[in-house]
Formats: sequence, structure tokens, C-alpha cells
Amino acid sequence: MNAEIIAVGSEMLTPYRQDTNSLFLTKQLNDLGVEVVFKGVVGDHRERLVECIRQALSRAEILICTGGLGPTVDDLTRECVAEALGLGLRADPDILAALYARFATRRIQMSPNNARQADIIEGAEALRNPRGTAPGQFMTAQYDGERKIVILLPGPPWELEPLFQTECIPRLKALLPPRFIAVRELKLAMVPESQADLRAAPIYKRYTEVQTTILAGFGEVQLHLRTEADTEEEAQTRVDRLASELEDEFEESVFSTAGESLEKIVGYYLQMRDATISVAESCTGGYLAQRITSISGSSRYFVGGAVVYSNDLKSQFCNVPPLLIAEHGAVSKQVATAMAEGIRKRCRSTLGVGITGVAGPTGGTDEKPVGLVYIALADNLKTEVSERRFPGDRERIRHWATQQALDMIRRRLI
Amino acid sequence: MNAEIIAVGSEMLTPYRQDTNSLFLTKQLNDLGVEVVFKGVVGDHRERLVECIRQALSRAEILICTGGLGPTVDDLTRECVAEALGLGLRADPDILAALYARFATRRIQMSPNNARQADIIEGAEALRNPRGTAPGQFMTAQYDGERKIVILLPGPPWELEPLFQTECIPRLKALLPPRFIAVRELKLAMVPESQADLRAAPIYKRYTEVQTTILAGFGEVQLHLRTEADTEEEAQTRVDRLASELEDEFEESVFSTAGESLEKIVGYYLQMRDATISVAESCTGGYLAQRITSISGSSRYFVGGAVVYSNDLKSQFCNVPPLLIAEHGAVSKQVATAMAEGIRKRCRSTLGVGITGVAGPTGGTDEKPVGLVYIALADNLKTEVSERRFPGDRERIRHWATQQALDMIRRRLI
Repeated sequence: MNAEIIAVGSEMLTPYRQDTNSLFLTKQLNDLGVEVVFKGVVGDHRERLVECIRQALSRAEILICTGGLGPTVDDLTRECVAEALGLGLRADPDILAALYARFATRRIQMSPNNARQADIIEGAEALRNPRGTAPGQFMTAQYDGERKIVILLPGPPWELEPLFQTECIPRLKALLPPRFIAVRELKLAMVPESQADLRAAPIYKRYTEVQTTILAGFGEVQLHLRTEADTEEEAQTRVDRLASELEDEFEESVFSTAGESLEKIVGYYLQMRDATISVAESCTGGYLAQRITSISGSSRYFVGGAVVYSNDLKSQFCNVPPLLIAEHGAVSKQVATAMAEGIRKRCRSTLGVGITGVAGPTGGTDEKPVGLVYIALADNLKTEVSERRFPGDRERIRHWATQQALDMIRRRLI
Repeated sequence: MNAEIIAVGSEMLTPYRQDTNSLFLTKQLNDLGVEVVFKGVVGDHRERLVECIRQALSRAEILICTGGLGPTVDDLTRECVAEALGLGLRADPDILAALYARFATRRIQMSPNNARQADIIEGAEALRNPRGTAPGQFMTAQYDGERKIVILLPGPPWELEPLFQTECIPRLKALLPPRFIAVRELKLAMVPESQADLRAAPIYKRYTEVQTTILAGFGEVQLHLRTEADTEEEAQTRVDRLASELEDEFEESVFSTAGESLEKIVGYYLQMRDATISVAESCTGGYLAQRITSISGSSRYFVGGAVVYSNDLKSQFCNVPPLLIAEHGAVSKQVATAMAEGIRKRCRSTLGVGITGVAGPTGGTDEKPVGLVYIALADNLKTEVSERRFPGDRERIRHWATQQALDMIRRRLI
């Protein structure tokens, strides 16, 4: 079964706004065994919209339109879908009453154009939208002698997402042939993309029935596995078997098998080991602390951190001897080590991290070029230091450095 | 003049990848006076792609296809555009020679499918792509008796963007009627979107020839102004006049008139005043330091920071008296004040910031609910504290808090 998604709204034809609903919808549809074969963005323009809807109906079995369901004259999706299907609109009395009630409770007079939101295409069901005024619509209809499923959804994601999940998925499941789909997601830290593919390909190529997608970010590779089988168990077994072979191949580089972020995994491990952590950052400027504390409940294991840009502060907050800085330079293995050990002692935490480097774009030298970063991790027994040369711009170098630090913490706690 | 953009590639029909090139291209086209009326995403599928190209040619004057120019069998854009236009392909000898040379310098044997990248549609010009192997293509062609401009671009943004700017814009300018377009962008800090529109609308509505777009993020509103006139001067005068009226209306809330970020503006002001800054963060966990240090050259004015999650560390790094915390609680006006003053003293900086609050989702109480944040700013004369209740989830509350802090710093330095 295949689907086409049309995002309606002139604002998405400007340089400033992007359709993101289609990503969410694609994930949901894929899980039902539906493939998205075309996505389009069209403005609030009657003829263009009708034409696009007709094209979609002629080539896809499911059509989803997002946006254009509001009360203004620019909101044309209802009318255009009805026109393309050759059907009329009728005001749904329950929806209309709910609209009046909604305005009444706020003691506002409802302007007449709001009533348009109660217009439902002949033969469609109105889908309750608890987070907004415009209901969704769901219908099956004939087009060119074929049965099509047509869904209209409000544009704002916080309205669309719960509405699709509660109202559309059960209806789609009832109409589509039962499918048994299983998915798995493995995440690898600090493995280069080219190497990940080189090592993974011989394995996943043997599983011809599992679709494998490799996505790479900075210091992170995601392996998405997806399969369909005659039974739920068969599908699950198949992806699990491939996942387990990939885990064997990448061993400790696999940090997550269920989609969690690296900072979340680090949080799990710290709590599991009853350990605490503190960080001293120079070139990352608080980025590592920010990532660790982005996790709710991180106060249980994150004691604190110091952002020590100046040499004076490196000594004051992390007890780095000024002579050490004078001898080796602020960007050095020795200073990273002293920062990690110093912040650990000052914060009385199980682990301490020290990061110093050249994030650029200025400040690099032949000896200490942009991208050079030292990352140290100390516990009560030892301090390890990693020397890395990261590629890219300031933002990327800083991100790589925090990723490397989080991965070192994770590996220490395994 | 209007344009349609087709992004080619099955990976953009998955839940993981988004077409972003069209945003860049829309901006560039708008600046040439070209409106984008339709955007589509289609997979690596010959019939579907040919059909989409034909539709686009039948309704738009300019067609841009991105992606699908590589060497693999999945790269079908060249063939499909040629087929839709009823034209042939010819191998460009210069491009072919360059491909062989490229592989030779790397001492790799070129596989035969790479030669496909030298295939140019009859009548098209090859566009040099210094950042990749696949050249772009530019042509004018007849379709259904009308002249169309057709452009093929490689998919990776770092190849597409410079190629479009150096090769396509001059060619488009030569073909399109001369247009004089002027744009301006104002950014406002900490003004609610509804209020921004309410106050801006009576002003921009008087400028019927200027197109005004309002975009709102967390704690930031952007006003994009754009106009077209018979001369460059007239266009510029018109947007400047509207911009200046809007600046008068929003006064100090306007932090940028040329697109800079708030952290960048804060950096400008600090350098201009020869001032330095340090920060003590609890609930924002390093986020403020991270934003300040994301700016290259921030070491000139950012001394350092402390991420003080534990009460003990608040005392140790920021000299907050333990009794003060015991009396008022860690989330209080008094503790925020003491943090700002303490970190300022410890870092010997001109300004000091203290942030303490409840980022949630857990940890809120009736008295100190999730979203309550105190932000203090100290200099040698006074300390001001702002008490705010921010909406949203952990990520948003933390972002709002850093935005408010940056805005307080900016206002202090104006």
C-alpha cells in the first residue's frame, strides 16, 4: 500500500518554514506497512491545490493532507478535497455546537468564518481534535473507479500527532491488511560512518528481508532495521537476530539498542553504578554540562561543573598549577589531566572530566591547530586522556568533543 | 516568474531525512523575484520521477531538481529530465576527462558507472562542481510550446549551495527581467508573539508594498521585510522606512537589525564597553555559558562560569552562604542574587549572572512550580533579579531562561 502526503500552506513555500509533519506521518505509516511514495508542499491557492489533490488521488492509495483547516479564507483544504472528489460539504451540527460552546466559555463572540471549521466532506467522519478548533476528517472514497483513503489533518504538530495516533491509526488498521512489522535501532558512538558501513554491510546484506538504513551525525551512527513478516514473532526474531550480529561486530561501540541519546545512557550508567560526575570545560564552554543536565533527574548524579576559559580560573576552580599551564600551554594533555583531577576533587565526585582544546576558527597554530582537543577522565584510580583532531567548524568541533567525553564516561562505567 | 523544486531521493521519503535544500533555494529565488509555487519529494523511481518532472514543466516556468546526479543506478535525474523533455544525453568530454583525472590523482581505478556523471542533456550547459564529482546542469528548453528554465543540482548542500550561487544566479539574472528587491530583518527579544503582531500590524499594514513575515521562537520574534520596486534605491528606502518605524515601536526590544543572534549581539556590546562576564548556572546547567562561548572570539569577554547543581558547590564556587540557601531555598531571588554577585567576584569580571530555577518535569512544588526561574545580573553598583514563569518542557524552559539572561545583559549594556 502506498501513500502521498500533501502539506498545505503558503508559509511552507517561504525560506523560513519547513513541513515536518510528513516525517512523523511517514514513521507512523511505515509501521502500518504503508510506503510514502510522494510528498508535496502547495500554497493556499485553490486551483493549484485541487490539481495536486487530483494527481495524488490518481497515483496513491492513501492521501493525507495536512494544514489548511483553519477558519480563515486562506484555509482551503476542505473545499479543495471535496471539489477534487466531486463531493459536497455539510456542516456537522455536533462540531458546530462544540465551536460555539468553546467560544462561549471564553466569553468571546464567535465570528461567522469559524463555522467553516465544522464543514465536513460528504461521507467523511469528523475526527475530534482536543487540542484545537479544527477537526480532522477521515474517509474512503471512489476516484477513477478505485477506492482511496483520504485523511485531512490540522497543521500544528501538537494537534496533528495525538489526533493521528488516537483517531487515524485504529481506522487505518481496520482497513489495511494486517501487517507484522518489527523495527530495531542501534546507535554507535565515535565510529566513522565509512567504517560503520564497511563493517555492517557484509552482515546486513545477508538479511535480504530486513531493510537497513544507516544515518551518521557527528560522532554518532544510527542503524535502523525494519522488516515485515507473516507473524509478529517472525518479524521480531528476524530484526533481533540481525541486531545481535551487529552488536557482536561493533561490541562496545554500541551504546543504545532502543533509541536513547548518549547523554541519557550515561545517566543510566552513572545511576546504576551509584556514581557522580563533575566537569571542567575550556573550549566546549559549558556544552558538556548542558548535555548532561538536559536529562531530567540529572541532579542525582551531576554535581557541577566549571567553565574555565581563563588560565586564572583553571587554577582557581580546578586547582591547575599555574606553572603547569606555563610549561605545557593551556591546551595540553597535562592541563586536561589536571582539570579532570582538580574538578573531581573540588566537587567530591566519583568521576571528573577535563576538556581543553582549540575550537577555532581563530587561535590555531602549527603546533596546536584548530580542532585539537584533549579530553581527560579521572576517577580515584587513574586518569586517561584522549588527544583528538576533530574536523569541521567551531560548532562541530565542540559537539565532537562533548560526544567523545560522554563516550569515555560510558566506556569507563560499562 | 514562478518555480517548482523537486527533491529526488528515496531517503527523503523515510522518517529520517528531510529536504532542506529547498529552503536555501527559495531564499535565493525570492531575491531574484521568483516565487516558489510548489515543492515535491520523489524517490529514485523512473516512472514516478518522469511524471513529476512533466507536471512541473506544465505548471512552472523554472524547474529545479536536486539530487539523483551521482554514479549509482539509483541516480536517475539526468535520464528522467531528458526523457520528460524528449531530449537525448551526450557525454561531455571535458567532464569525463576531469573525472578520470580525479580518480587518477587518488590512484584509484574509476569504475565505469562513474562515467554516467558526465552525461549532459542535449542543449544543457554543465556547471562545474568543485566540491564533488557530479556537475550541475543548466538549460532553457521548450515544453508544450513554452520556454522553461531547467536546472539540475547535486543533492549535498555543501556542493549545491556554492554551485547555485556562482553558476546559476548569474545565468538566471541574464534570463530574468531585472528586479530590484530589498530585504530587512529585525529581531526582538522577549516580546510575546501575539503582542509583537498586535503592535506591528498597524504599522506594516500601511506599507502595502512590503511583504512582512513574522516568525516566533522561544523568547525571540523575527520580522522579515521584503519589497520590490523599479529601482534599487526605491526598494531599499521602502524597507528602511518600515524598519525604522518598527524600531521606534519596539524600541529596546529590537536587538538586531541585520540578522545576528542574541549571543553575538551580547558579544559586540561587551567588547564595545570593554566589559567581561561570568555566569553561575543551576537549572540551565551550562546552557548560558555554552551559548555565550558558541561565538568565536568570546574568550575576549567571557571569563568563565560555574555550573552549580549542588548547594555545596553554590557555596564553594559562588560564595553563596549556606544559611541563605537554608532560609530561602536554592530556588529563590536571594540565592540568584548571591550567585551573580559571588561569581562576579570570584571571576573578577565586570558583570556576573546567576540563574536558579525548576526546569522540570519533576521537582516542582505548589510554591515553586516547574518553570519558575530567577535570573540575576550584577555589576559593581547593583544587582537586578528577574522572576519568571516559563511555559513548556525542560528544553524550552532552559532555553527561555538563557534568552532572558542574554537579554538582561544586553539591556544593561545599551
